Amino acid sequence: RPRGVLTLTCRERPGIVQAVTSFLLEHGLDIVEHHQFDDSERETLFLRTAFAADDVLDVPTLEREFASVADGFGMTFAFHGEEKPRLLVMVSKFGHCLNDLIFRWRAGTLGGDIALVVSNHPDLRPMAEAAGLPFVHVPSTAATKAEAEARLLELVAVHDIDLVVLARYMQILSDDLCRSLEGRAINIHHSFLPGFKGAKPYHQAYARGVKLVGATAHYVTPDLDEGPIIEQEVIRVDHGHHPNRLATVGQDAECLALSRAVRWHCEHRVLLHGSSTVIFR
Amino acid sequence: RPRGVLTLTCRERPGIVQAVTSFLLEHGLDIVEHHQFDDSERETLFLRTAFAADDVLDVPTLEREFASVADGFGMTFAFHGEEKPRLLVMVSKFGHCLNDLIFRWRAGTLGGDIALVVSNHPDLRPMAEAAGLPFVHVPSTAATKAEAEARLLELVAVHDIDLVVLARYMQILSDDLCRSLEGRAINIHHSFLPGFKGAKPYHQAYARGVKLVGATAHYVTPDLDEGPIIEQEVIRVDHGHHPNRLATVGQDAECLALSRAVRWHCEHRVLLHGSSTVIFR
Amino acid sequence: RPRGVLTLTCRERPGIVQAVTSFLLEHGLDIVEHHQFDDSERETLFLRTAFAADDVLDVPTLEREFASVADGFGMTFAFHGEEKPRLLVMVSKFGHCLNDLIFRWRAGTLGGDIALVVSNHPDLRPMAEAAGLPFVHVPSTAATKAEAEARLLELVAVHDIDLVVLARYMQILSDDLCRSLEGRAINIHHSFLPGFKGAKPYHQAYARGVKLVGATAHYVTPDLDEGPIIEQEVIRVDHGHHPNRLATVGQDAECLALSRAVRWHCEHRVLLHGSSTVIFR
Amino acid sequence: RPRGVLTLTCRERPGIVQAVTSFLLEHGLDIVEHHQFDDSERETLFLRTAFAADDVLDVPTLEREFASVADGFGMTFAFHGEEKPRLLVMVSKFGHCLNDLIFRWRAGTLGGDIALVVSNHPDLRPMAEAAGLPFVHVPSTAATKAEAEARLLELVAVHDIDLVVLARYMQILSDDLCRSLEGRAINIHHSFLPGFKGAKPYHQAYARGVKLVGATAHYVTPDLDEGPIIEQEVIRVDHGHHPNRLATVGQDAECLALSRAVRWHCEHRVLLHGSSTVIFR
Repeated sequence: RPRGVLTLTCRERPGIVQAVTSFLLEHGLDIVEHHQFDDSERETLFLRTAFAADDVLDVPTLEREFASVADGFGMTFAFHGEEKPRLLVMVSKFGHCLNDLIFRWRAGTLGGDIALVVSNHPDLRPMAEAAGLPFVHVPSTAATKAEAEARLLELVAVHDIDLVVLARYMQILSDDLCRSLEGRAINIHHSFLPGFKGAKPYHQAYARGVKLVGATAHYVTPDLDEGPIIEQEVIRVDHGHHPNRLATVGQDAECLALSRAVRWHCEHRVLLHGSSTVIFR
Repeated sequence: RPRGVLTLTCRERPGIVQAVTSFLLEHGLDIVEHHQFDDSERETLFLRTAFAADDVLDVPTLEREFASVADGFGMTFAFHGEEKPRLLVMVSKFGHCLNDLIFRWRAGTLGGDIALVVSNHPDLRPMAEAAGLPFVHVPSTAATKAEAEARLLELVAVHDIDLVVLARYMQILSDDLCRSLEGRAINIHHSFLPGFKGAKPYHQAYARGVKLVGATAHYVTPDLDEGPIIEQEVIRVDHGHHPNRLATVGQDAECLALSRAVRWHCEHRVLLHGSSTVIFR
Repeated sequence: RPRGVLTLTCRERPGIVQAVTSFLLEHGLDIVEHHQFDDSERETLFLRTAFAADDVLDVPTLEREFASVADGFGMTFAFHGEEKPRLLVMVSKFGHCLNDLIFRWRAGTLGGDIALVVSNHPDLRPMAEAAGLPFVHVPSTAATKAEAEARLLELVAVHDIDLVVLARYMQILSDDLCRSLEGRAINIHHSFLPGFKGAKPYHQAYARGVKLVGATAHYVTPDLDEGPIIEQEVIRVDHGHHPNRLATVGQDAECLALSRAVRWHCEHRVLLHGSSTVIFR
Repeated sequence: RPRGVLTLTCRERPGIVQAVTSFLLEHGLDIVEHHQFDDSERETLFLRTAFAADDVLDVPTLEREFASVADGFGMTFAFHGEEKPRLLVMVSKFGHCLNDLIFRWRAGTLGGDIALVVSNHPDLRPMAEAAGLPFVHVPSTAATKAEAEARLLELVAVHDIDLVVLARYMQILSDDLCRSLEGRAINIHHSFLPGFKGAKPYHQAYARGVKLVGATAHYVTPDLDEGPIIEQEVIRVDHGHHPNRLATVGQDAECLALSRAVRWHCEHRVLLHGSSTVIFR
């Protein structure tokens, strides 16, 4: 039986869940997984319902018919069918996250389909092409940055991309690009945010004698390294870990946090909540 | 506003959630937290809904009126009001879990109220009494075991106990006692189950050179150490940890796992699922 | 057999370990645990040797006789006998760390002996006194801060204190006090440093949607929250954790990190390394 | 400057460290990393010393000259030069560990060099060959098992293999093969040992409602799944993880535990200690 997902957010009010479940029941859709979070502090409801249908899912029709329910409650909502989201992965020279994402994609556990790899350096072309993925080299300098970002947005449009994954892409995106990709670009930050922002985080961590290194996957926003956090992971280290070894250990945390964030996003398990996120695992 | 919780289990069928939410809406109860898990493999639905009411909650009336809904779907259900569950804590000589439970109870984060402490040894009387708790010494030998267990059940009845917490109680309960406490007795096992069952788990762990020690909180069942798992915790160790030091580290894992299991049970977040559990955190 | 510990730091040079082990051998001291870390980047050697003696240990004589070895290599060193370090614990209103430290002290796993509890609030007097500990109330306002700090230093001197433990003491120490306690005062910071410094860290963490909360035990330095890190711990959380619940979970991390830091310090397992630490577990 | 490592085990006696450090000093070798563990319970000393030399290291000569020191103390010892150990990786159909090992090998963080991949199935040939590695398909049935194991030992000899890595090789090795590879074959067990031995561990784990899944890297011994543990890792799961999803999460733990075990072995950081291990990280 085909499956779909409904996600929605609205201000708390009595009757919301009843309205949603009635709608699904009337349309012959069986709930198979239901998550709901009521943030009483901010009086906001977050809901994700996965359902099974007897026939082919017609997402546009569902969305049109649900609109009248949604209007009554002031809901922001979306229906999602079974097609896997299409991913554009951006890299620079570090390949550990790309390698990890490719393996999970092929094993069928990534949640989405990688459509192409884009990089400002040519180094990882062999890794992408060995996996049968198109690799587009888009160099970016101070002089060509605007052009390079335009090219990226063109690739996003042409390849019908749902999610841009910054898998250790070592260039800062312009505010404009961040805004145009809002909610559909995930970055992996190579340290445990909000600590050790900026350059050389593992050198900073070493200088303080940290005992745990981590990584943070977050949505991209114009405020560098300040986007809503989706997932974090840490691994224990000790004084014997010089910055290079800290970085090697940190890469394991980066792979774990990024791949989970991508999968949850692709399965529509991440709902934005201002500067925060609600994750329905 | 007073709050309550509804928990239920039943076979999956269309319309369940709709029926529940309609009932709550009609009774003027606002959903403030809703969790639902559909085990598609075993075709069973688990549901927990916390709600707020405008008036005093009348649990018996709610249960009586909900019975007609429940009958139609073959639900097993319960409504819970705001009174905190009453706990009887059983100990022997190790005091770390009792000390931890007492602190959390006083800080208001345990979820339940400790009513009394029962022990087969007198050692922890001062700890219990310093906290203002009655301490009942019920010695138990091979000859007096049946009598001691009868005394325990009497204390459970007299003190109106909702949950028995075996906080490193070092005696095996009889099958009969296990059955009569089914679903309302939690044990902390001093190792990471199912590994290292039986005596001296830390010596067994040491002999194998384990790199992580753990603890497992589970419901008590006649099958020793085989009850449904509620929570587990692990802490990293190394070869320098002789059995005694492993045990000391393991005690930290025991306190964390047991207190979480108790809190989740008291908040009606744990639903039994055969030999397993569903936890709605 | 009595046991002792030698700790030392010096610039790397050939022959250091040979000189140390020869000295111990000549004095009839058997090495029972030896740790050594050579920071090749900063060309510094850190060494901790625990040894067993046939007779009573005479620490002052050992230190005097070792001085000639130490001079040749420019070592900073100390011999430690079997007496447990004496601790002064400072608290305000939160009792979870004090409760945890008291339990470990009585169980014999804290590493040191708590001599007294000092607080700027009277709230925790019952907890201290129930454990048989003197409790000294030293109120501190803007006007009386200098006086209060003088009183604290007096208590440190009178009670022959080796280590001051700030167990959620909610007052900022003056730079002068920090300097006079350098290397012998440990603070627990109620978040995962260097993230979320300053006030209300759990509110900051909630606003960003963090998925792990942590705690950091560090030596006190005039740079607030910037002292050398001794231990860190994290616990997984989710979007359902409002700031209050984050704080409750964070308290578990605080107890674990602080008690480990105190034990390692008391066992002479922590060597300062500029703004960092070397931990010989 | 070239570097080497000395590892040794012997019964505890005064003067061991002094003898070792004197030997190194006399041979112009500077200690750059020194670990030592004295198991007072079993009265055994474990020691690992990494050193730097001014000239090319002559391992055979060092071993010959050290023999007289070793004889006096009854030491078991080995000197190791700078050549990276050569690895033979055995797989069946699951590729996650192979993919992970290949990536780390190419990134230079695996500790050893992969020489070839051997499998009882042809499925992973493309992955191996894409990395430029020879892939040898050695089918093994009940009838051909002896022959297949002989072929494996031949490959070990011909390719001068130092370590065999069973990266989810799904065939049980014969006792004879286990014995002939003792101390130089590492297996990854797809669960947290000693729990859930045997077939379908993730189904067993699911049935008990485990809250953490793990993996265990251990040396191969004739006692199936009972070899000395080198490393373990766990990852938190919940009731929503059906066996397939448990397995997917477990694979992350497997990659982490296996790659660490391989690196530590290759860096001569793992010393066997009966059924246990000493790890000098």
